[in-house]
Amino acid sequence: MGGGHAVADAPDANQDPAAVAVGRVWPMPREYQVGSGVLVLTSDFRLNCRLTGGQTGVGNQQRETSDLLLRACERYQRQLTLADGQLPEAPAAHAAAANSSIIDGQLVGLQLDEDTDESYQLAVDVASAQLTATSVFGALRGLETFLQLVQLANAVAQRRYLSGVPLRISDRPAFAHRGLMLDTARTYFPVADILRQLDAMASTKLNVFHWHIVDAQSFPLASEALPELSEKGAYAPDLVYTRQDVDRVVQYARDRGIRVIPEFDTPGHAYAWGLAYPELSVCMHTAPDKVGQFAAEPPAGQLDPTKEATMKLVETLISEQAVWFPDRYIHLGGDEVNAACYEQDPHVAAYLRQHSLTVPKLIERYGRQMHDIARRSGKRVVTWEEMLLEYDFAVDPISTLVQVWRGASSVRKVVQRGRRAITSPADHWYLDCGQGAWVNTHSGGDSWCDPYKTWQHMYTYDPLAGLADTGNTDTSHPAVAGGEVTMWTEKTDTVNLDIKVWPRAAAAAEVLWSGRRDVSGRERTTHAAHPRIHRFRRRLLALGLRPDMVNMLWCEKNPAGCEAA
Amino acid sequence: MGGGHAVADAPDANQDPAAVAVGRVWPMPREYQVGSGVLVLTSDFRLNCRLTGGQTGVGNQQRETSDLLLRACERYQRQLTLADGQLPEAPAAHAAAANSSIIDGQLVGLQLDEDTDESYQLAVDVASAQLTATSVFGALRGLETFLQLVQLANAVAQRRYLSGVPLRISDRPAFAHRGLMLDTARTYFPVADILRQLDAMASTKLNVFHWHIVDAQSFPLASEALPELSEKGAYAPDLVYTRQDVDRVVQYARDRGIRVIPEFDTPGHAYAWGLAYPELSVCMHTAPDKVGQFAAEPPAGQLDPTKEATMKLVETLISEQAVWFPDRYIHLGGDEVNAACYEQDPHVAAYLRQHSLTVPKLIERYGRQMHDIARRSGKRVVTWEEMLLEYDFAVDPISTLVQVWRGASSVRKVVQRGRRAITSPADHWYLDCGQGAWVNTHSGGDSWCDPYKTWQHMYTYDPLAGLADTGNTDTSHPAVAGGEVTMWTEKTDTVNLDIKVWPRAAAAAEVLWSGRRDVSGRERTTHAAHPRIHRFRRRLLALGLRPDMVNMLWCEKNPAGCEAA
Repeated sequence: MGGGHAVADAPDANQDPAAVAVGRVWPMPREYQVGSGVLVLTSDFRLNCRLTGGQTGVGNQQRETSDLLLRACERYQRQLTLADGQLPEAPAAHAAAANSSIIDGQLVGLQLDEDTDESYQLAVDVASAQLTATSVFGALRGLETFLQLVQLANAVAQRRYLSGVPLRISDRPAFAHRGLMLDTARTYFPVADILRQLDAMASTKLNVFHWHIVDAQSFPLASEALPELSEKGAYAPDLVYTRQDVDRVVQYARDRGIRVIPEFDTPGHAYAWGLAYPELSVCMHTAPDKVGQFAAEPPAGQLDPTKEATMKLVETLISEQAVWFPDRYIHLGGDEVNAACYEQDPHVAAYLRQHSLTVPKLIERYGRQMHDIARRSGKRVVTWEEMLLEYDFAVDPISTLVQVWRGASSVRKVVQRGRRAITSPADHWYLDCGQGAWVNTHSGGDSWCDPYKTWQHMYTYDPLAGLADTGNTDTSHPAVAGGEVTMWTEKTDTVNLDIKVWPRAAAAAEVLWSGRRDVSGRERTTHAAHPRIHRFRRRLLALGLRPDMVNMLWCEKNPAGCEAA
Repeated sequence: MGGGHAVADAPDANQDPAAVAVGRVWPMPREYQVGSGVLVLTSDFRLNCRLTGGQTGVGNQQRETSDLLLRACERYQRQLTLADGQLPEAPAAHAAAANSSIIDGQLVGLQLDEDTDESYQLAVDVASAQLTATSVFGALRGLETFLQLVQLANAVAQRRYLSGVPLRISDRPAFAHRGLMLDTARTYFPVADILRQLDAMASTKLNVFHWHIVDAQSFPLASEALPELSEKGAYAPDLVYTRQDVDRVVQYARDRGIRVIPEFDTPGHAYAWGLAYPELSVCMHTAPDKVGQFAAEPPAGQLDPTKEATMKLVETLISEQAVWFPDRYIHLGGDEVNAACYEQDPHVAAYLRQHSLTVPKLIERYGRQMHDIARRSGKRVVTWEEMLLEYDFAVDPISTLVQVWRGASSVRKVVQRGRRAITSPADHWYLDCGQGAWVNTHSGGDSWCDPYKTWQHMYTYDPLAGLADTGNTDTSHPAVAGGEVTMWTEKTDTVNLDIKVWPRAAAAAEVLWSGRRDVSGRERTTHAAHPRIHRFRRRLLALGLRPDMVNMLWCEKNPAGCEAA
């Protein structure tokens, strides 16, 4: 993995070698063994990304694997040599030279999806460091772990070393779907903001960027098939994402082993669609004092599910976006559809009478039509929980993921109905709660999902809670694909984005990668995580993010002194 | 005030001229009359800071007045020509040239204190703009108002104009003491962070920077008389404020009409003093599980009030700092003194027995000694409320300000005892609440002053609430000098400082300058303030701050659509 040599600095006798070594990595590796030696990196240390495992696919696939890995190595090499904002620590003794290949094993398969094998094995000895994986994306996870193991010595400036050697890590995620959702409709974010989130996601092994790209407030996606959607629905002509922007995000994400799932939320949350297609929309331009009856928040406006042209409109967009976003899944929304909005519309009301339909039945039918559209575009579907739990739409148990948001208890309901869940409960994993109401009120009001979710609150949420009788193991469940933290942006823009998301998203990331319990079945504690999340925050600062503070420097220096008695 | 000429752009007929003109200014001017014309500034417009009012003091004082004013004019001239992030608005018609002097009146007195006359009058006509004040600091307030009145036309790039002309503003603060407290001990902030807060304070007419400079966690002030205090008590050798740093902050503040009141909080919150003077400190290095008994938060440690050497130590520091900080006042703390910390100390316990003293009596005596020290250094004192309300220390009714923090109801208690209050109640004006506990807990815990205080919550706090029977008028009370918002920094550092403070501090600033009620006795509403605070946030962005978001752009564009029904 590069050259190294011995130094004579004494180890810090007060520190548990396991804590010093593996505890540096966020999220915590699943299985590991540590020794008490060190591997010191020479100043000319270079990551060696030569593949040694033989066959890596054929032709273009081999080339693509190799290129992706080389770009990753260049990235991590850069991060290794950057000043990284760490608090210097004392290096340990007994270092030796190392010069070994970093990647071993057959890196077969470039498919990045929920079945991707992200496991890796890392072996660090006093004379070598070796990473083994079966997919290039597993190799990326291992490179991140290796980087986070590197410590900075205070005795010799810029000397970097790994402790706990010989070190063996065998790592794999507890959940396949580990996501961050970002709403770019309530607030438009420059592409640079999104790329920065992807950097941070890779650093904590999150692998799904759920792009809530459009909503009632604005339609910032510049569809080429339906240009009027953004021409009339975006906040401003320059506040849009072009095909080029989408490509850039998708490619940047893929390079970091992150899938991009776009969301096109209908039939609710569709005011911005209605600016271009008023004839396919209902309860647009509702008077301010009536909005509360027709929508969860301003502005009201829903697509009209009674019209064939509505289906055509959505299919035109979806079939285009199925190409722009190559992921196997597409998110079709389906949350918070407002019945009163349909009932008060003369045309929809007449249609319901004529066809002896209720609003829930109409929405259920709309859901089926949407899923058919997705299927014709070759996509699996993610849907918000209401489509299953409120409208009783019999979503496909294999190909559909049901995203829970209204509370942790919904996970059990989805599982009991034999469907697969992603969990992002507002009572645990919503990043936007606790800073007052969306709209203006005399007192500032409460946010509907008060209080603010602390990192500890996010860290102690167990996606498998309440599923003991439904077939779970300690750290996984066949019907729980994973989870997401969600960044709704009523009160978030480029100024406070990083602060709202980080480091809290990392707390969820550790739950999703490492599991709420370790392999021995012990619950992970915030006590053990507290000094570690301080350190991970410094990693985020080094990556150029502006993560929120954990607590005061006195606590970072004296973590044991800042635990609640 | 500079040259201008007429343009033909049509005014926005939907906007109330008063709202367009005076509503742009934050905090809202007290009295005004508006017309429907405009004054357009030519591209070569220059602020003219020539004094026309005759006598402005003698010798050095005249020079200093003139220099301070010239620096202010240069600053505002720069801000005028900067891109300021405003949403462009349509300019109105009927502009005319203006070329008049900006400052009129006798600018006598350079004393910046609670008696400074900050009033000003601004007259903008179609052919002139004129500012009148009786002190240079009043002139500064008027310059800020003038700047905020300037609008950017969308029709002609970079064309700037004032509407509501002829415009007459007669303005003066409701309260003399309008402060922001920043804790630089739990977190050290670079000087640049402090200067940026002073810029923002000036923009919203706050006039007291309460510098909570030292506390239990660190002692970042590099005293030259007692260098060991920071050598042993600072977080790190480079995390200190030197005499040069203090001078820079004090001068920068004065140039903006802002007083700097430093706080030296004793006898509690003194762990960092004890690192240099362990023999004068008690309950230092308490075991983590006992800290809760001896201090409100880690680390525990109080000065020993039984020792003469403690008095000498404090007097040495205060007499030095009385020079570094020229303000008439010094803050001596006195909050959260822990009785158990003293009772468990063998030496203090023996002293109490020997002198037949109780801990409250001991603290009361310490308070008297501290105030004597301040008096010998020529200073008036600010003290936290406990010294009066808990320890019954008969603070001087004229020269002492009692700062309320434990809740709004304390204001009445202070006033009823015939003392003067500054109000910064935790239930309204604490900027740190609502983001979890200071220390680590399993669930992340609540912050003790939950929930988060929204800008609306801060805006609707009335410093005079509950005082109707004690001699207040609608907007002032002889015993309420003013108030402060406080930024305690357990969970705030350079990354999130601006976001925590702004624009919320501005909500309090409008209460303190403009009063909760206007001159007609009408309560100011968050409804009227909502679009205005959006605009003021853009002013803060233009100043280079990173203020928190108000709410989504849709609401900024459609404020009426984002009011709670």
